[in-house]
Amino acid sequence: MLKLEDHIRLIPDYPKPGIQFRDITPLLANRVAFNIAIDKIVSEVTHEGLDAVAGIDARGFIFGAAVASALGLGFIPIRKSGKLPGNVISESYDLEYGQDTLEISIDDVEAGQRVLLIDDLIATGGTALAALKLLKRCELDVVGASFVVDLPSLGGSKKIIEQGTAVSSLISYAD
Amino acid sequence: MLKLEDHIRLIPDYPKPGIQFRDITPLLANRVAFNIAIDKIVSEVTHEGLDAVAGIDARGFIFGAAVASALGLGFIPIRKSGKLPGNVISESYDLEYGQDTLEISIDDVEAGQRVLLIDDLIATGGTALAALKLLKRCELDVVGASFVVDLPSLGGSKKIIEQGTAVSSLISYAD
Repeated sequence: MLKLEDHIRLIPDYPKPGIQFRDITPLLANRVAFNIAIDKIVSEVTHEGLDAVAGIDARGFIFGAAVASALGLGFIPIRKSGKLPGNVISESYDLEYGQDTLEISIDDVEAGQRVLLIDDLIATGGTALAALKLLKRCELDVVGASFVVDLPSLGGSKKIIEQGTAVSSLISYAD
Repeated sequence: MLKLEDHIRLIPDYPKPGIQFRDITPLLANRVAFNIAIDKIVSEVTHEGLDAVAGIDARGFIFGAAVASALGLGFIPIRKSGKLPGNVISESYDLEYGQDTLEISIDDVEAGQRVLLIDDLIATGGTALAALKLLKRCELDVVGASFVVDLPSLGGSKKIIEQGTAVSSLISYAD
């Protein structure tokens, strides 16, 4: 039986010394692994009345859009700063060095819509928390957050749960 | 009957004066429109024995991954420079001012695989041609290229066809 973990590549010291990067590119390229991953995320979605999946730029687009399409939902892109034309709101978050900013197009969502947040990986959770804040500022009902890979020792998934949002993941690494 | 064109937003003079930007964000957010678009791309795929969809960073990931999943295929991300860890090859292309670079992970593709290239929009074709070159340098068999929006007056789709790759699009704007 295929194990999704076998299709995650460990890249030591990337993007900087001490970081063990979990690369999902091999999982995407393997048709069986990619489609099992999508099917698993879809099968874990038990929320009723969902309207859309929100995916985070750029790897979250891959899993998010595939899940949205499989469930017949809309897709809300949460993008890096300056990439969305039209009316946006922004949320900045701290990186180890400096800051980054996410944006959402406010003309394409409606208050009260039920949304699932998807990204490829959650580590410290800075990106996912900023995305969650954007969705809540749009008065969307974020019913859950799904990740392919969770690094729970870095605390991100715990922070999302503390915000009242259920978290699920396909693969969890202890270190 | 829903018209996909009604869910494309025209943003005048973006990102600079004289450019009429075709924004697909409303189409994504509308669950009916998004899923009709994916279904239409999928139904136009008549190529047999496809292995994967290659999608271009970042909006091409949205349509590409949804189509890959619908067809049970793998997904090959073609990314902006510096985003893919591991072993990559690069292809630079000219923008109106300056250059941009796309990359592909060479360890995750096999020579001879049959691939469909997908992006949200083709205009002058610089990005799509660079992606096509990367796929061919990996000795992949690019059986077609699909776009949601074509701006044929800017010549991009013609250039792709001249490379021997069939092109299809859902919406075509004369101006």
